[in-house]
Amino acid sequence: MPRIAYFGPEGTFTEQAARALVTDVDADALVPMDTVPQALEAVRAESVDAACVPVENSVEGAVPATMDGLADGEPLVATAEAVLPVRFSVLIRPGTQQIHTVASHPHALAQVREWLAVKLPDVELVAASSTAAAAVAVRDGQYDAAVTAPVAVTHYPLDVFAEDVADIPDARTRFLLVRRPGALPAPTGADRTSIAAVAADRVGSLAELLNELTLRGINLTRIESRPTKGRLGEYRFFLDIAGHVAEQRVGDALAALRRRCAQVRFLGSYPRADRLPADVPPASSDEDFEHAAAWLDAVRSGEIA
Amino acid sequence: MPRIAYFGPEGTFTEQAARALVTDVDADALVPMDTVPQALEAVRAESVDAACVPVENSVEGAVPATMDGLADGEPLVATAEAVLPVRFSVLIRPGTQQIHTVASHPHALAQVREWLAVKLPDVELVAASSTAAAAVAVRDGQYDAAVTAPVAVTHYPLDVFAEDVADIPDARTRFLLVRRPGALPAPTGADRTSIAAVAADRVGSLAELLNELTLRGINLTRIESRPTKGRLGEYRFFLDIAGHVAEQRVGDALAALRRRCAQVRFLGSYPRADRLPADVPPASSDEDFEHAAAWLDAVRSGEIA
Amino acid sequence: MPRIAYFGPEGTFTEQAARALVTDVDADALVPMDTVPQALEAVRAESVDAACVPVENSVEGAVPATMDGLADGEPLVATAEAVLPVRFSVLIRPGTQQIHTVASHPHALAQVREWLAVKLPDVELVAASSTAAAAVAVRDGQYDAAVTAPVAVTHYPLDVFAEDVADIPDARTRFLLVRRPGALPAPTGADRTSIAAVAADRVGSLAELLNELTLRGINLTRIESRPTKGRLGEYRFFLDIAGHVAEQRVGDALAALRRRCAQVRFLGSYPRADRLPADVPPASSDEDFEHAAAWLDAVRSGEIA
Amino acid sequence: MPRIAYFGPEGTFTEQAARALVTDVDADALVPMDTVPQALEAVRAESVDAACVPVENSVEGAVPATMDGLADGEPLVATAEAVLPVRFSVLIRPGTQQIHTVASHPHALAQVREWLAVKLPDVELVAASSTAAAAVAVRDGQYDAAVTAPVAVTHYPLDVFAEDVADIPDARTRFLLVRRPGALPAPTGADRTSIAAVAADRVGSLAELLNELTLRGINLTRIESRPTKGRLGEYRFFLDIAGHVAEQRVGDALAALRRRCAQVRFLGSYPRADRLPADVPPASSDEDFEHAAAWLDAVRSGEIA
Repeated sequence: MPRIAYFGPEGTFTEQAARALVTDVDADALVPMDTVPQALEAVRAESVDAACVPVENSVEGAVPATMDGLADGEPLVATAEAVLPVRFSVLIRPGTQQIHTVASHPHALAQVREWLAVKLPDVELVAASSTAAAAVAVRDGQYDAAVTAPVAVTHYPLDVFAEDVADIPDARTRFLLVRRPGALPAPTGADRTSIAAVAADRVGSLAELLNELTLRGINLTRIESRPTKGRLGEYRFFLDIAGHVAEQRVGDALAALRRRCAQVRFLGSYPRADRLPADVPPASSDEDFEHAAAWLDAVRSGEIA
Repeated sequence: MPRIAYFGPEGTFTEQAARALVTDVDADALVPMDTVPQALEAVRAESVDAACVPVENSVEGAVPATMDGLADGEPLVATAEAVLPVRFSVLIRPGTQQIHTVASHPHALAQVREWLAVKLPDVELVAASSTAAAAVAVRDGQYDAAVTAPVAVTHYPLDVFAEDVADIPDARTRFLLVRRPGALPAPTGADRTSIAAVAADRVGSLAELLNELTLRGINLTRIESRPTKGRLGEYRFFLDIAGHVAEQRVGDALAALRRRCAQVRFLGSYPRADRLPADVPPASSDEDFEHAAAWLDAVRSGEIA
Repeated sequence: MPRIAYFGPEGTFTEQAARALVTDVDADALVPMDTVPQALEAVRAESVDAACVPVENSVEGAVPATMDGLADGEPLVATAEAVLPVRFSVLIRPGTQQIHTVASHPHALAQVREWLAVKLPDVELVAASSTAAAAVAVRDGQYDAAVTAPVAVTHYPLDVFAEDVADIPDARTRFLLVRRPGALPAPTGADRTSIAAVAADRVGSLAELLNELTLRGINLTRIESRPTKGRLGEYRFFLDIAGHVAEQRVGDALAALRRRCAQVRFLGSYPRADRLPADVPPASSDEDFEHAAAWLDAVRSGEIA
Repeated sequence: MPRIAYFGPEGTFTEQAARALVTDVDADALVPMDTVPQALEAVRAESVDAACVPVENSVEGAVPATMDGLADGEPLVATAEAVLPVRFSVLIRPGTQQIHTVASHPHALAQVREWLAVKLPDVELVAASSTAAAAVAVRDGQYDAAVTAPVAVTHYPLDVFAEDVADIPDARTRFLLVRRPGALPAPTGADRTSIAAVAADRVGSLAELLNELTLRGINLTRIESRPTKGRLGEYRFFLDIAGHVAEQRVGDALAALRRRCAQVRFLGSYPRADRLPADVPPASSDEDFEHAAAWLDAVRSGEIA
């Protein structure tokens, strides 16, 4: 049975994403890891088959540990994505009458601050190293309530005091399931491709990369820049684009980036969680590319002109 | 005397950045705020004159609270930036013989994990809501040691057990000092300009923006994309570019973005912390722009052709 | 009364264009010149007020003498254009019974070759130095018929044997009326602007010029390249674009070309003969430019952000 | 033995170009044709093996008959080019004592006007339908001298009165040798490729085509626009670019134009007459393309990432 690592501990949103992405495995095939790099390393070391890691959060932004972890080290590729709403549960020990202390990861506390001010106005807030660690501390009687991912309640003998708690109603986190390189997921018409490209810190270098995409009718769905560690004045751009590398316009664009950049790393082509089909503008369909390639072959062979 | 808010509490890296950015104020003119939005709001409400907020960290990435806080609400502009190395101090109560517990914000603990494993291998790690909160807890006898910003030692009666502690040697955080709109800092030849631009989610919209920069010889030093809250399929790009809006090529490019985008917000022109002068390519100097404008005036008036 | 030079002799299409362009002058104010350079020189020397010269012909292509004559020497600007259908008259002496010889300029003979083959199958074709010279030769009894511009019949005591003669039904010639620099014709909303720009012979130099136009929503209606005389590997591009230099997007684009090119010469903004209004895409109207300029002023002055 | 048509008559510059381009044929294998279209049609009809036609003249500009003749009808491809200096001979009948009349094609007379004014100031100038027709007329005693291509003296019993006659010292004409489609000339490293592409009359359509070239590091050596006959507001661009279609960057760019344009016609890849090697910028060599293609294959097959 496949074993799936995830950025733990048990009972977090990442575990929940892993369950959503890998529906055919037993719970004990899910292996929590302390850090994102450790989860990725477990895949590289072949001690697990895949890892589920967070890549960006609409409130907290990108997750650099994931981006850097995929850009460096042995190549890994994403084969699936999941997007989870960030809605918390507040868990208590059965029988708790009054809540004096509420524990959670500082980020989670920040995202339910307004709710707490209204519903539990006089409680003391206590930092924990993760939402799951807070649940453990509540189970152990240290604090009265924990702000957790919904999945946490399945792991601990706690009751749900409140659920769907979120100051920012549409906050969400995007997760990737990454594996060692191998057969890619088949194109579905609603795919996303992720790449990391290193470009020089000079006028126009990024514009040139994006023009390669634009001229082939490819839509960019996300871009982040990070300075590379090795060299001063060099940037690594993380690009998410609409489409699958098996599609002609996407493959052609990636090959162009490969020529142009000091380094391009393919981070995967996978079905979009939102199932939004890629828009294929005129002159950009696979058929357009095939006709043009056939025409070029004929020109080169002297058959036609 | 000017009052400067910062994302607190006292004793954090942000306080340290505030002190570096505002050298002419007394310590009691620095006002810690619980959150980045509160620090920005204090400026808008005119209860302080400026705010010091973190904008990006080389390990943790962008700080969305700052980006969103500047992009929304009443306009504010950055007038200075500071870049601080992320090197921690480990503080203990005077006389402490043995360290059993180490407290800090989970992010800080993550960044000294390797150092702790070597130097304090058997300690228990405890989450706190901030590095400064950890110092308070150590002062109060709750834990033995706190991982803090160097400035923390000036606030609490603690001793330095270790300093310059960092698993990632060149980690750094960038901070901005933001104010209500008013006279801009004078150009220094080594300036940065920050803008937030909303562009449609269609093929080529970002490439067009970047081409406006490239054609005017402007270098992009950072780019981040974030979905706008209001509208599905609309992105806000945060762009940092080399140069000052008072320079012709930069002003001209910003006016072009203004025409092209649903929304462009100027977030400030300020001296770069690294004092790196902007490269001005051929055809892009202020003199080039002035000659061209004079030529155009002459053409339009019929004087010459 | 204004005096207008034209590329003669009398009785040619260029005279006809001059009459169409300058409706308020007497016939004797029209001064035929032997060559295009002489017609242009007469304007520069102030011996005439304007000159009518051919600029391109749909069958014969561009008229290099006009292009070079405008690009070199003292600046001149076009203030009007005319487009004439190239339809010939065949003129004979009154009373001519049979046509044995037909004279004209070789280009004119080439353009009625098929008509002659059908209507006058056995005639001998004779070259003349111009269509008007052919008419003179027919008047003088040297040949039987002349292929001429329609206007020729007004100058010579000849009869019209046939008119509207043309193998290529929609052949046409474009003419410009050029003057010494002075007040420009007012914008009409359906104008054309002509420029000559010298660009280096390197990858992308022309693409950059055209991108300056494209980013400002400007349509190119004609482009020709000619090597410059002075320098090897340098090209001069003649560009006709939709719009008037008094319009913001056009003036802004011209200023950009002026910065970017070794040399840009403004050759005039004038009403299009076809009265086709310029399409002004989003973000390219005068109002868009004015709003953006006002916004930039506000940003620079610190009023808003 | 191959038969080569050329735009005649005998004794013109085009014959001279044909001799220069086809060195291995007897003089009687060269077949003069009355017009450029007829010369091209003879190739299409397989009555000759190739045709030599003028394509542009530095004084007179492009030769539309050649451009249109190659863009329409059955495809033909250029396999060689020649560039001839335009320097005339003045031919007379042996024994001629005094020159009263000088005959030539009007374009030739125009190009030696200054020379004639100095050397033969009082002669009468007479138009002929070609420089060779002028030579015939001189042979037949009609006129005293003919301004001709140097080659004319080999065809007629005339003496050279003057040679190397040219008001414009570096005037030159470019000729192409065109054939029915077949094996292309092998790349030499100093090749030119000619294409005709139909693009819509809208903002940016030409800029997009040129960007496809620029992004692949391809230099444009000539561009001409002509309205297409069929459709209003549609342009055909004639592009000459540095490089051979067998080279990766050129083939890739042509395939991109093919996708993007209503119509692209390949007009040939052939050695440049000036033997100037193509500059191959970084990321544009055949090796760069091959590495990128191999990388893409590996990505698609899941071997690496």
